[in-house]
Amino acid sequence: MADLVSRTELIVEWGYCDPAGIVFNARFFDYFDIGTWLLFEVALGVKRSEIATAFGIIGYPVVDAKARFIAPVKFGDRIEIASTVKEFRRSSFDVEHRITNQGTLAVEGFETRVWTGRNSDDPTRLRSQPIPPDVKERFRTVK
Amino acid sequence: MADLVSRTELIVEWGYCDPAGIVFNARFFDYFDIGTWLLFEVALGVKRSEIATAFGIIGYPVVDAKARFIAPVKFGDRIEIASTVKEFRRSSFDVEHRITNQGTLAVEGFETRVWTGRNSDDPTRLRSQPIPPDVKERFRTVK
Amino acid sequence: MADLVSRTELIVEWGYCDPAGIVFNARFFDYFDIGTWLLFEVALGVKRSEIATAFGIIGYPVVDAKARFIAPVKFGDRIEIASTVKEFRRSSFDVEHRITNQGTLAVEGFETRVWTGRNSDDPTRLRSQPIPPDVKERFRTVK
Amino acid sequence: MADLVSRTELIVEWGYCDPAGIVFNARFFDYFDIGTWLLFEVALGVKRSEIATAFGIIGYPVVDAKARFIAPVKFGDRIEIASTVKEFRRSSFDVEHRITNQGTLAVEGFETRVWTGRNSDDPTRLRSQPIPPDVKERFRTVK
Repeated sequence: MADLVSRTELIVEWGYCDPAGIVFNARFFDYFDIGTWLLFEVALGVKRSEIATAFGIIGYPVVDAKARFIAPVKFGDRIEIASTVKEFRRSSFDVEHRITNQGTLAVEGFETRVWTGRNSDDPTRLRSQPIPPDVKERFRTVK
Repeated sequence: MADLVSRTELIVEWGYCDPAGIVFNARFFDYFDIGTWLLFEVALGVKRSEIATAFGIIGYPVVDAKARFIAPVKFGDRIEIASTVKEFRRSSFDVEHRITNQGTLAVEGFETRVWTGRNSDDPTRLRSQPIPPDVKERFRTVK
Repeated sequence: MADLVSRTELIVEWGYCDPAGIVFNARFFDYFDIGTWLLFEVALGVKRSEIATAFGIIGYPVVDAKARFIAPVKFGDRIEIASTVKEFRRSSFDVEHRITNQGTLAVEGFETRVWTGRNSDDPTRLRSQPIPPDVKERFRTVK
Repeated sequence: MADLVSRTELIVEWGYCDPAGIVFNARFFDYFDIGTWLLFEVALGVKRSEIATAFGIIGYPVVDAKARFIAPVKFGDRIEIASTVKEFRRSSFDVEHRITNQGTLAVEGFETRVWTGRNSDDPTRLRSQPIPPDVKERFRTVK
């Protein structure tokens, strides 16, 4: 029983590249965010814009992020973002992203996110919430 | 009695520049937005994050935008954004932005925005609202 | 004999949306840029990263841009960008972009760009160049 | 003899914030980049746009980046970015960034960058270069 991996291909746009002609490092975190939304959409079977409402949360903000830049990615390159959850804990989880450029690993990314809702006593305040077991299950069993 | 003009200086950052080594055209509309927030903050005497609440609106979204790119702006250039309201109408207004680079006009921008609140019958819907006369006044009399 | 129109679909990503929950106005000019690159790729039959070299130019920078925002575009919406050249002149041309959201026109954009190369007397300087007739032709005859 | 720390204040702009009303996580890596350029400008006494030429490099691209998000940062907040080099090695170095929001630590960032020039045998290829001792020295002695 393998972990679900979502994959999407996209072309590196001009506006994402810097004067060195390569993707500006901060933009890769945009790519990771795209990867996470797609992964959840695929796993949960819910459109990304409806996930928060469907699960009674405000979202799953990032608390830790990192990236390792291995090979340059240039304007016009067609890249693949492959995303998977590496570990679920009580209310947080780790997403791994692998960006490949024509088959070569170019960037590795890693996000820790927290399943977050509103405080039932005070809805203006946010708090972490336990991830429903059913949610975790869908990341393992969907093909 | 002159129109209020807000001015701010900033340095052109690496991440705003494209592989041609100049500011990517779309980023100038980020600069215009910065100019408009500053202008309203100065005119109204209210922090930008509190303007919506203070005036019972959700904001003043852009309905028309344009820019003329006259001279290139490069990484590290120190530019000035000068912003002013050129015309107030019942519920919309025009903001003009002039970006100068070491004294030379580099970009002219123009936004039409609409003073927008919630529909009193159905708060989930947005609608334009008349701009309070007091708001218009502050763009003329503040020094 | 109709003008060539390029079309691409994309999903509105979280990082393109602002605190009002809609696409931040400046990001639509990113979409227009994407539309123009795709249009030229389709028309010229050359990968976007190789167009400059193939035609001996440095690119076709924007000298005028404008947008009309007609209907909101939100996180997760699937939009289409349709792009076409409306007019070719000696060394400049106008690109029109129409962004539709589930069949409804949401944003109209318009860019004037200049076919730009290096000055033969002084390669550090840029100058407009006549657009080759063959280039113009390809925007009419490709299906 | 303390390490040089550069500090800059800026206001969180609307276009950097996401539908949750807070700075989109990827934008903090833009802030880190701003911090690194300022730090080098202050340490080296050379304008950021002239550093590459002055030191015979193409720049110092990021090979590793990470961030820890501790407290939310919202539209209109006035933040400070404090940046310092934590360690210089032969050709790479680590930059630490601390973003504070009204005195409270909100985000910690960390970049590893490589001092990079052109290969003398083949100028189309890039390679890491030893960081000049004089460069390292300026990060310690400048006040």
